[in-house]
Amino acid sequence: MLISQVSQLSGTPAATIKYYVRSGLLPAGTRSGENRTSYDESHVERLRLIRAMLEVGKLSVSSATAVLAALDDTSKPIAETFEVAQNALARDAVADVSEPSEESFERADGVIDRAGWNDCRDNVGRRILAQTIDGFARAGHTMSDEYLDRYAAAADIVAAADLDAVGAIADPSERTELMVVGTVLGDSLSLGLRRIAQAHRTAERNL
Amino acid sequence: MLISQVSQLSGTPAATIKYYVRSGLLPAGTRSGENRTSYDESHVERLRLIRAMLEVGKLSVSSATAVLAALDDTSKPIAETFEVAQNALARDAVADVSEPSEESFERADGVIDRAGWNDCRDNVGRRILAQTIDGFARAGHTMSDEYLDRYAAAADIVAAADLDAVGAIADPSERTELMVVGTVLGDSLSLGLRRIAQAHRTAERNL
Repeated sequence: MLISQVSQLSGTPAATIKYYVRSGLLPAGTRSGENRTSYDESHVERLRLIRAMLEVGKLSVSSATAVLAALDDTSKPIAETFEVAQNALARDAVADVSEPSEESFERADGVIDRAGWNDCRDNVGRRILAQTIDGFARAGHTMSDEYLDRYAAAADIVAAADLDAVGAIADPSERTELMVVGTVLGDSLSLGLRRIAQAHRTAERNL
Repeated sequence: MLISQVSQLSGTPAATIKYYVRSGLLPAGTRSGENRTSYDESHVERLRLIRAMLEVGKLSVSSATAVLAALDDTSKPIAETFEVAQNALARDAVADVSEPSEESFERADGVIDRAGWNDCRDNVGRRILAQTIDGFARAGHTMSDEYLDRYAAAADIVAAADLDAVGAIADPSERTELMVVGTVLGDSLSLGLRRIAQAHRTAERNL
């Protein structure tokens, strides 16, 4: 199909499609003659994924490129692809932040141990957790272990829901894609729901 | 104190402090003579808060300015200050995203009703929730109500922990500050813990 049709089917302006191709986010179409490039259904699908990552997931173009490269490498086991994607997805969240303190890493490990999460010491989330504990301290607040453990219990519920949704899909590449999409969009889901739950509880307590 | 002392106590370069003053994030010091400006402890504390919001919370300078303005307006009840802060905090998350579909707003309202959250229709989280449901659909995945309800249950746990931490503080201005800091940093906390929980469950299920 022509770029105009891809544009119409995906709801993406032709200039944006060309920009994604230049950025390496979207594979180029096939030259099918003088000044003529052909695209197919795979371009339309990939465009939906790109827009979900950039617009809803708020990923940078470079992080989105890394996630798509991990998705496309079918030689890796799913767990490994997922780790690459997690790191790329976390890059935007942890950029430009100073190294967490030893003390915060220790507190993070305490939370991880009490949650019963094994073999997760290399996970990028451990660093984000330690940085956030440091952030609270820098802002003059110390969060109790009980507070952190309640957040961990909530994260466990969310991760179980994610893995159940992923496990229900048979096709491996579709399954990996949902893991990545779910990681990006699940963060927005948590963020939005937390705002509503906070407003409800604030009203409830007459604060 | 001199800017050099503020810089040392807060761990912020003097040039950065001057940039925050120019941006309206930090009140200017008091002119105490030719080429001499005095700062006090309140500047050091405010700097800690600014850095937590920008570096760990990843807020834009304009969103951080709006949050600080809400914090400083002590004439408002806490719930109202909190709402202003929530909107400012959400602005970065929802910028440049198209209007959610009617269908997604309806699904969002279903989640809110089943969670038992009252009077939350005006909350910015409802819009983020609807946009995320649209994002999943655009990426080719439909999330079940059960999936969304499990996320809502997790958000409820997190919001209860937030409000318990805030409720334990007696001083009103310190309490409002923790609500704002907690809203910013709690998102990072959820994000980090979710990554670890996902890695644990992926390994557990041998995916």
